[in-house]
Amino acid sequence: MARRDTHELILTTSLALFNARGEPNVSTNEIALEAEISPGNLYYHFHNRDEIALELFKRYLLEVSPLLEPGGEAPALEDITLRLHLLFETMGRYRFIYRDLADLYARVENLRQAMNGLLGRKEAALHRLVGRLRDEELMVIASGDEEALVANALVQMTFWIAYAQVRDAKGLEDGTALTAAAARVLHLFIPYLAEPAADGFRRLARAYMEP
Amino acid sequence: MARRDTHELILTTSLALFNARGEPNVSTNEIALEAEISPGNLYYHFHNRDEIALELFKRYLLEVSPLLEPGGEAPALEDITLRLHLLFETMGRYRFIYRDLADLYARVENLRQAMNGLLGRKEAALHRLVGRLRDEELMVIASGDEEALVANALVQMTFWIAYAQVRDAKGLEDGTALTAAAARVLHLFIPYLAEPAADGFRRLARAYMEP
Repeated sequence: MARRDTHELILTTSLALFNARGEPNVSTNEIALEAEISPGNLYYHFHNRDEIALELFKRYLLEVSPLLEPGGEAPALEDITLRLHLLFETMGRYRFIYRDLADLYARVENLRQAMNGLLGRKEAALHRLVGRLRDEELMVIASGDEEALVANALVQMTFWIAYAQVRDAKGLEDGTALTAAAARVLHLFIPYLAEPAADGFRRLARAYMEP
Repeated sequence: MARRDTHELILTTSLALFNARGEPNVSTNEIALEAEISPGNLYYHFHNRDEIALELFKRYLLEVSPLLEPGGEAPALEDITLRLHLLFETMGRYRFIYRDLADLYARVENLRQAMNGLLGRKEAALHRLVGRLRDEELMVIASGDEEALVANALVQMTFWIAYAQVRDAKGLEDGTALTAAAARVLHLFIPYLAEPAADGFRRLARAYMEP
């Protein structure tokens, strides 16, 4: 196998194992075993598990970034629902990152700062989306309420995985924790949306909750 | 000093140190030093840090429990704002518990189950409060919206400390993270409240945010 393919194989194998069992519970030997390569070969690519976790975090950032950029040709409403959907999907694919943030911060240097930066960009993106909804006269919201809406959405988007781990760990495997969290974020917007936008969000939230 | 007083001194000293620096970063020797007792004396009362953390968690549960019980003579609106205030205050006093939930779960047996039980009781209490507001015709909310409101409030109440740690760690020391989180939870209710209840919540939220 080419070196580049092995590098990739290690990352995809690690991601699957980290998501399924939690990153602290997976050893590099187990990753090598699962990837059917020697521990020495793995070590050639990554010196330890933290390096793998950091590389995966960087990939997560790369995948999330376009979803947080301004612009987009689509009407605000479609744009928002699509972005939210893709954001949740991306978080779900890299969910190990959100399982135990404090532990990752403690071990992987600069991760807290990187996460703080990411949250700052998510916050700005949410404010831009609210602004577009307001410009298109789909939303009426006072500025104090907007601050709270954005912060509540951010907390929900950051901690739905940790919350599901306590309350409904199975939901993380079958995807119902993700759809429930996406529906909860839609519900944060509903009270400030004009009809028929509010009803559109409500129907979308219900669709998320259906099996 | 009487044995009972030493026991108490260890707990209050530990709580202060855990809150300030995070429970994983405090050793039993440091607790003994700060409490001005010998490590042997501390060991006589608690065999390790996990025992202290568990004892503090039990105290937290004891203090929180009355706030989650049904009943109360006060009108729903006063009752809710007072309970929310006291809940946040109690979480703030025991905030080390919420700093790194996953780590505590991993080390202290049954803590995840205890936390899940606590969240279940908080959820029931929130639904009862919404029911009382509805009975007193202060609130209009569809049942799907109520589910989302209660879940959003629960996630906010459980993770505001972890969120502040990433975004604004100083706010945990000076209390502004707590008041901002309490204001965010009030804002979740506002869209469903009739006037003047909505305005009362809005003013209370603003008061929380003022320095």
